[in-house]
Amino acid sequence: MFFASDNWAGAHRSIAERLLQESTGFAAAYGTSDLDRRVEARFAEIFERDVSVFFVATGTAANSLSLASVQRPGGITFCHSEAHVIEDECGAPDFFSQARLAAVEGDAGKIDPAGLVKRIAGFPENAVHHGRATAVTITQATEIGTVYSLDEIDAISAIAKANKLPLHMDGARFANALVALGATPAEMTWKRGVDILSFGGTKNGCWCAEAIVFFNPEQAKEMPFIRKRAAQLFSKSRFIAAQFDAYLENDLWLGLARHANAMADRMRAGIGASNSARLAWPTTSNEVFAVIPKAAAKTAEDKGAKFYEWPVPAARPELVGADETLIRLVTSFATEAADVDGFLACLAS
Amino acid sequence: MFFASDNWAGAHRSIAERLLQESTGFAAAYGTSDLDRRVEARFAEIFERDVSVFFVATGTAANSLSLASVQRPGGITFCHSEAHVIEDECGAPDFFSQARLAAVEGDAGKIDPAGLVKRIAGFPENAVHHGRATAVTITQATEIGTVYSLDEIDAISAIAKANKLPLHMDGARFANALVALGATPAEMTWKRGVDILSFGGTKNGCWCAEAIVFFNPEQAKEMPFIRKRAAQLFSKSRFIAAQFDAYLENDLWLGLARHANAMADRMRAGIGASNSARLAWPTTSNEVFAVIPKAAAKTAEDKGAKFYEWPVPAARPELVGADETLIRLVTSFATEAADVDGFLACLAS
Amino acid sequence: MFFASDNWAGAHRSIAERLLQESTGFAAAYGTSDLDRRVEARFAEIFERDVSVFFVATGTAANSLSLASVQRPGGITFCHSEAHVIEDECGAPDFFSQARLAAVEGDAGKIDPAGLVKRIAGFPENAVHHGRATAVTITQATEIGTVYSLDEIDAISAIAKANKLPLHMDGARFANALVALGATPAEMTWKRGVDILSFGGTKNGCWCAEAIVFFNPEQAKEMPFIRKRAAQLFSKSRFIAAQFDAYLENDLWLGLARHANAMADRMRAGIGASNSARLAWPTTSNEVFAVIPKAAAKTAEDKGAKFYEWPVPAARPELVGADETLIRLVTSFATEAADVDGFLACLAS
Amino acid sequence: MFFASDNWAGAHRSIAERLLQESTGFAAAYGTSDLDRRVEARFAEIFERDVSVFFVATGTAANSLSLASVQRPGGITFCHSEAHVIEDECGAPDFFSQARLAAVEGDAGKIDPAGLVKRIAGFPENAVHHGRATAVTITQATEIGTVYSLDEIDAISAIAKANKLPLHMDGARFANALVALGATPAEMTWKRGVDILSFGGTKNGCWCAEAIVFFNPEQAKEMPFIRKRAAQLFSKSRFIAAQFDAYLENDLWLGLARHANAMADRMRAGIGASNSARLAWPTTSNEVFAVIPKAAAKTAEDKGAKFYEWPVPAARPELVGADETLIRLVTSFATEAADVDGFLACLAS
Repeated sequence: MFFASDNWAGAHRSIAERLLQESTGFAAAYGTSDLDRRVEARFAEIFERDVSVFFVATGTAANSLSLASVQRPGGITFCHSEAHVIEDECGAPDFFSQARLAAVEGDAGKIDPAGLVKRIAGFPENAVHHGRATAVTITQATEIGTVYSLDEIDAISAIAKANKLPLHMDGARFANALVALGATPAEMTWKRGVDILSFGGTKNGCWCAEAIVFFNPEQAKEMPFIRKRAAQLFSKSRFIAAQFDAYLENDLWLGLARHANAMADRMRAGIGASNSARLAWPTTSNEVFAVIPKAAAKTAEDKGAKFYEWPVPAARPELVGADETLIRLVTSFATEAADVDGFLACLAS
Repeated sequence: MFFASDNWAGAHRSIAERLLQESTGFAAAYGTSDLDRRVEARFAEIFERDVSVFFVATGTAANSLSLASVQRPGGITFCHSEAHVIEDECGAPDFFSQARLAAVEGDAGKIDPAGLVKRIAGFPENAVHHGRATAVTITQATEIGTVYSLDEIDAISAIAKANKLPLHMDGARFANALVALGATPAEMTWKRGVDILSFGGTKNGCWCAEAIVFFNPEQAKEMPFIRKRAAQLFSKSRFIAAQFDAYLENDLWLGLARHANAMADRMRAGIGASNSARLAWPTTSNEVFAVIPKAAAKTAEDKGAKFYEWPVPAARPELVGADETLIRLVTSFATEAADVDGFLACLAS
Repeated sequence: MFFASDNWAGAHRSIAERLLQESTGFAAAYGTSDLDRRVEARFAEIFERDVSVFFVATGTAANSLSLASVQRPGGITFCHSEAHVIEDECGAPDFFSQARLAAVEGDAGKIDPAGLVKRIAGFPENAVHHGRATAVTITQATEIGTVYSLDEIDAISAIAKANKLPLHMDGARFANALVALGATPAEMTWKRGVDILSFGGTKNGCWCAEAIVFFNPEQAKEMPFIRKRAAQLFSKSRFIAAQFDAYLENDLWLGLARHANAMADRMRAGIGASNSARLAWPTTSNEVFAVIPKAAAKTAEDKGAKFYEWPVPAARPELVGADETLIRLVTSFATEAADVDGFLACLAS
Repeated sequence: MFFASDNWAGAHRSIAERLLQESTGFAAAYGTSDLDRRVEARFAEIFERDVSVFFVATGTAANSLSLASVQRPGGITFCHSEAHVIEDECGAPDFFSQARLAAVEGDAGKIDPAGLVKRIAGFPENAVHHGRATAVTITQATEIGTVYSLDEIDAISAIAKANKLPLHMDGARFANALVALGATPAEMTWKRGVDILSFGGTKNGCWCAEAIVFFNPEQAKEMPFIRKRAAQLFSKSRFIAAQFDAYLENDLWLGLARHANAMADRMRAGIGASNSARLAWPTTSNEVFAVIPKAAAKTAEDKGAKFYEWPVPAARPELVGADETLIRLVTSFATEAADVDGFLACLAS
């Protein structure tokens, strides 16, 4: 009953075995091996266009270096106020890009387009005192388990384009969002105007595989130096490539995400049917937020369930009753139905 | 016949299998799993004292964050002019520590103690214009395959201590140096006054496992934030731990280094016995530098040998004749005697 | 009728003449002249205790280097959401300190103590993902012309101390706040728990004279290098000292601030008595915010008045009517009563 | 007898009086006043072409921001090993540009063209490990009092152009070099291929006036934000403009430099004629380096002379005898012949 985070899971067997398989033999280092090249080419197929791909090893690195690649002095990147980049990366995006993040509010963990327009307008061109707008980043799926619809991405993208700002997508849970929408990778990214993508593999079955994908290779030209200076160029890069190779083969990645989402659906259904617990807000990815009795939480923990409490949103203090608690439940490729059912049983008791 | 670099090798089978083995199941993320804790404790055993250990994923990260941990504004870290930190890390140590490196010359790739004393003296305390001495770093084994003797480390350490400068050791090839000296880990580090160590596993059989080891845990207190901000805190950190777990078990790491060094010995012996080639300078680790006929280099390359040309030292232009070339040959845990012999055969022909 | 900003004024005659007077002769450079030393000592008298003083040349430098002096990796400085440091310095505080600012809301341009407590609580110790609380900064007088009372400073200071956070005061308009409160420099700073002060002279009659004042000289120990690396150590530093020498002599500075505030009082009284305009909110320093008819604004501009429109606070859209505009009027040591009256006449017409 | 540095002098009377004169009245802040605009236009006249001009307040700022304006990640700026930027600015150029400086040797304080070619070649394009060449900077006049001839600038410039590297000139003593060469400002800069100039006024009679001059305004486009973020945008910028206004009027600046150089000539002549002292090396600007008896140095100091000892060049240990010392003597606009003669008298006694 491990629902603390999808990164508590290990690596999917196919990926782990591919690592073992690729462990023998010699290959050129620093991302120049045949395998590196081949897997990079695979990304072009998946995204149905030329792309520039840079493997890195953590989601924080992927986001930070993506944003660094489009920064300029005094720059401001706009993100949702609950985004991972501003809340959970210890200032890494600011550090690597020597620039700042500015938070925009919005319901359901998504940037409110009108709010974004207004926020950007606070940084008129050449107003050196304020700094200047330089990028927009969205998180797909969001930190609170929701997913931007294609139309919603279009809305943000249109604003970014109107202001000549590159649009980045933090796809730490890219696959979960993709299968939730039933879209293709191209449809959810560059066809919507996304310029740079943090394509995450770690949370969905790899052990450390993240890729920065540039849909406009021209924008990638500083990245080799940005990545090396950031200590993210791996000598045995082929092992990141190997993970992606297995991950992308025969749509394994989509299958893993579907499984994780299905386990979340099962959880959502169970909670919805419960008379002691309820969903805090609707989600469609592999994260579930629920209000449950404190007693049920205690029961679950006693039975070994792992999950985190979640702060009650400031705007909705009435959401959680006195004897209740708000929790986050994250499913993964490794979650089993029995674990979900075991957890639901704790609520019933 | 892969002698381009030890990082062209894959991962040792025991390590690769351990990764597979640890790939199932759930564990706490971000370095807090039982396995992380257990392997950290293992470092204390190996170094015979309390240590603070931080896993990172590249040698550049290990060095850069080590140096960042002891930096202050205007700081200068002294290193050898050919050190990896100043030559091969794209400015990462400067970037992460917001400080500078200053080169000190020295024979055989090692800092000359007298030169170090003089260089440090160029930064008297409170001379704000120049900046200030803040650290010393040595590379063990060095970039050109030599190894500091324990006495030589003592000499550098004494200067560092006299100037109240922390001493860092870049141990990307720590194991190769250790077995070359026949010393214990403690003898080659803190017993000599080394304060912080980049303990490298990647070049010696892991796929990505580096550890920053603080012998004075007090100096490590900023490191959790430095590492996270540097995007080097891994969610599935247990997979770095797993590599080290296998690496350190039953002295596997020492055996792998002994093998690599033995292969280099075999190469050195063969070249020494050759009448067409010769060693450029004596080395005792897993790197061999040789002057060979250009024709022999061509023959070897035609037969598939991989190795790099090396720049002729400015101070020794006579080292290499008109029809000769200076090359670097690196052996690893995966090098086989037949490959060495195959390469030597090219020289003979 | 120059009310655009107090920095549109020139330099007070006594200060300008002192610069001329000190322009001859030779003196030790980089802050080591007798005059530098003497003026530094004068700060100790004014603040009734030992202080460490560092002259710099812009308010942005004073704030940025103050905050840099207490930063640590992953650090967060808390400030009001409308503070100059976060709104008007193009990211300089973040850049110099390699850290972030986090905004706290509060009425009247002042940090709300309860909001501060809550915001700090969002950064529990050792929660590396979020970063960590490292400092608090308040602006006295605030960006919207209000002044923290001594009790209000105490409230913020108590929170800072409870969380072991150094407290910085941005005193770009320190003198205006001081005379508004009728307090002594000591009472408004270290007796309230302020650790570091940006003591501004530029807006109040100097041409470029700012001082960073450390009430705990121990905290100042990195500053010589921070200042030099920031390109803020002046070779002819004695000319900053000369400005402060005249500024602080015979309480000139307090007289200038009293004059500026009196001119603002005159403006406030006139607007209060007007039947076409009104104060947007009460202020007690040299800034006045008024809602006036657009026609009156046009009239004033036509007559040569200089002032800026001010954004209507998001929380108070009803503040400004359809035919009205919100403006900021700043008085200075150089403002004359006739100018205030001339502006008021425009409102009457 | 003040020969410690030209920055020990005050401000020239014409400049100091202009500051007084401009101290009254109101003017737009942050570099937008009429005076700012007018003086910027004056630079275009002096340099005989369109230029973009940015006033800053210290030479370190001028150099650091100049170099920052052309930096890219992993960048390397090449400078002479004794250049002010690498020796005397506490790492500010590295800090502001998040890049590194690499030293090139050369006689007489000037970059050796062959050495520069070789050093640049050490950073082949796309060799991410080493970093990449991004700029070249020369100091005119040099730190040791010599002056690059126009041909010598051409030689460096040709190399920079061949490698597509922007060329920066640190002109802290620009005027002294200019009159030493008898060249025009255009001839010594953009006609030679200089792209960016730190135009120093402080050492030659201003109290704090430095200008960054871009000969290709296109390259200046990031500078407004770079300057503001660096805390170098002055609210009362008109006072820097005022200094330059007087400085450039009627060629005052050239006259001041001629005077300083003439005083140095007088010193050189006197030392050349002395039988106890001698010039350490030939110089043509306002710096004189002399080997004098220790006894004479003592005598001079006892009589109040101020000057600095200078380190004996490592390559020329024989330069200074046992009873001798190497000193630097700097003249300025304020140096009087009587002072020079007084110093020379100390040598004679």
